[in-house]
Amino acid sequence: MSGAASFKSCASVLVTGANRGLGLQLVDSLVRGGFCPGKIIATTRNSSATQKLQELAENHPNIHIVTLDVASQDSIERCAEEVGRLLEEEGLNCLINNAGIKLEADFHSVTAEAMIESFNTNAVAPLMITKAFLPLLKRAASRGSAGGPGIMGIQRAAVINMGSLLGSVELNWGDEAQNLRWYPYRTSKASLNMVSRCMAGDLRADGILCVAVHPGWVRTDMGGSEAPLSPEESVSSILSVIGRLSEEDHGSFLSFKGERLPW
Amino acid sequence: MSGAASFKSCASVLVTGANRGLGLQLVDSLVRGGFCPGKIIATTRNSSATQKLQELAENHPNIHIVTLDVASQDSIERCAEEVGRLLEEEGLNCLINNAGIKLEADFHSVTAEAMIESFNTNAVAPLMITKAFLPLLKRAASRGSAGGPGIMGIQRAAVINMGSLLGSVELNWGDEAQNLRWYPYRTSKASLNMVSRCMAGDLRADGILCVAVHPGWVRTDMGGSEAPLSPEESVSSILSVIGRLSEEDHGSFLSFKGERLPW
Repeated sequence: MSGAASFKSCASVLVTGANRGLGLQLVDSLVRGGFCPGKIIATTRNSSATQKLQELAENHPNIHIVTLDVASQDSIERCAEEVGRLLEEEGLNCLINNAGIKLEADFHSVTAEAMIESFNTNAVAPLMITKAFLPLLKRAASRGSAGGPGIMGIQRAAVINMGSLLGSVELNWGDEAQNLRWYPYRTSKASLNMVSRCMAGDLRADGILCVAVHPGWVRTDMGGSEAPLSPEESVSSILSVIGRLSEEDHGSFLSFKGERLPW
Repeated sequence: MSGAASFKSCASVLVTGANRGLGLQLVDSLVRGGFCPGKIIATTRNSSATQKLQELAENHPNIHIVTLDVASQDSIERCAEEVGRLLEEEGLNCLINNAGIKLEADFHSVTAEAMIESFNTNAVAPLMITKAFLPLLKRAASRGSAGGPGIMGIQRAAVINMGSLLGSVELNWGDEAQNLRWYPYRTSKASLNMVSRCMAGDLRADGILCVAVHPGWVRTDMGGSEAPLSPEESVSSILSVIGRLSEEDHGSFLSFKGERLPW
């Protein structure tokens, strides 16, 4: 069963960083799924989309490509305005903060600049983007509240932050962690977990669900060719998890299989 | 019993942010303790120390006031050179990364700039300072290795990162967390925990212990007048914990009472 099948009740999805890797695969899997959201907003850092994303959008008119440089507040605001015009009264059901960078510096090579660049893109941007899309998320959550005010999930509104197992402080220990002491990446993903947890606390009152999801180690430009998962496998599993999210998942850190991960 | 009594075997301590608050109290309690370290380096952001710190240094010639703006790489390097000349072959037994700022913005008022400023001072600076002082820490760890290569603690070398309970992602939940959704502060302290954990992994081979310590809620400029703990109470307890640190504490997140805290 395709993970996208569970998106039956979700009218709109926005995916950041959709030009390649997991972001592109999310758009691809959503649009090929049995129940495709009415509108898929695929954001790309540069105004020129990759050929793959362009082809996908040409074949599927419900894909809207919008420019978003997640590290720029101006760009975030322009994007939110443009998406607001696209979605109007419907609002936005599902915001997937997927865009990210992987900076791998170790203790000896790490610089303050690398720490800050990684933090800004991987942790601050999802926060600033969520703030900018709050009116659209609230609108969708309010329209989808017929099931009851306590009901949460993508039938109302959800913020999905693409985290990483490497952002778990608890799991950063022992022999396995030793070869992956990527200070900028790990710290930015731990920060994203805290941002996600803070936002979950603040968004609950509006019926907006918020979780962090670890996509697994995936064969993308970021994950490299040795990774065990194909983008299709990871994304199919992630979409199943997102589709099944409910109130009890709110504020948690989940693997692509839906397991709870330690902070 | 004063917490400083346990510093018998520690010849040198450096405390960042020693002009006021907990940093000043750390210097004060160390110097008044039964077993005072031979050299206490008290760093201050500005070249002019507060009157309290100046008076303390006038009465105790083993206190050395050195300028350190923790957010400036130039300043960090100059400070490390100056401290290197002071400590020479002894090296540095205990580096206390205490300097920090508290930015309290909530979801609606938080800006990217506040997030980055807080992250830079509270998480990146302790990393860059530890890197700069690594040669001095290694020297002390190597000199103090007579007890056995596996022995760890302030008789060799230790890095103490002043963390916060508010940096625990796990504990950021429920009613109690609701009124303290300080995005910049919480995120920077969660980042510090990750930095601390990464460094613990990397410093072990050199026999340098590394932990994060939560000082409690203390009546300082930062903690405010409603806090339950006096600076003396908090610091006495922290110094006891630091003095007793051993290999089994390496890489952990401890309260001022020595209890393990969740990440």
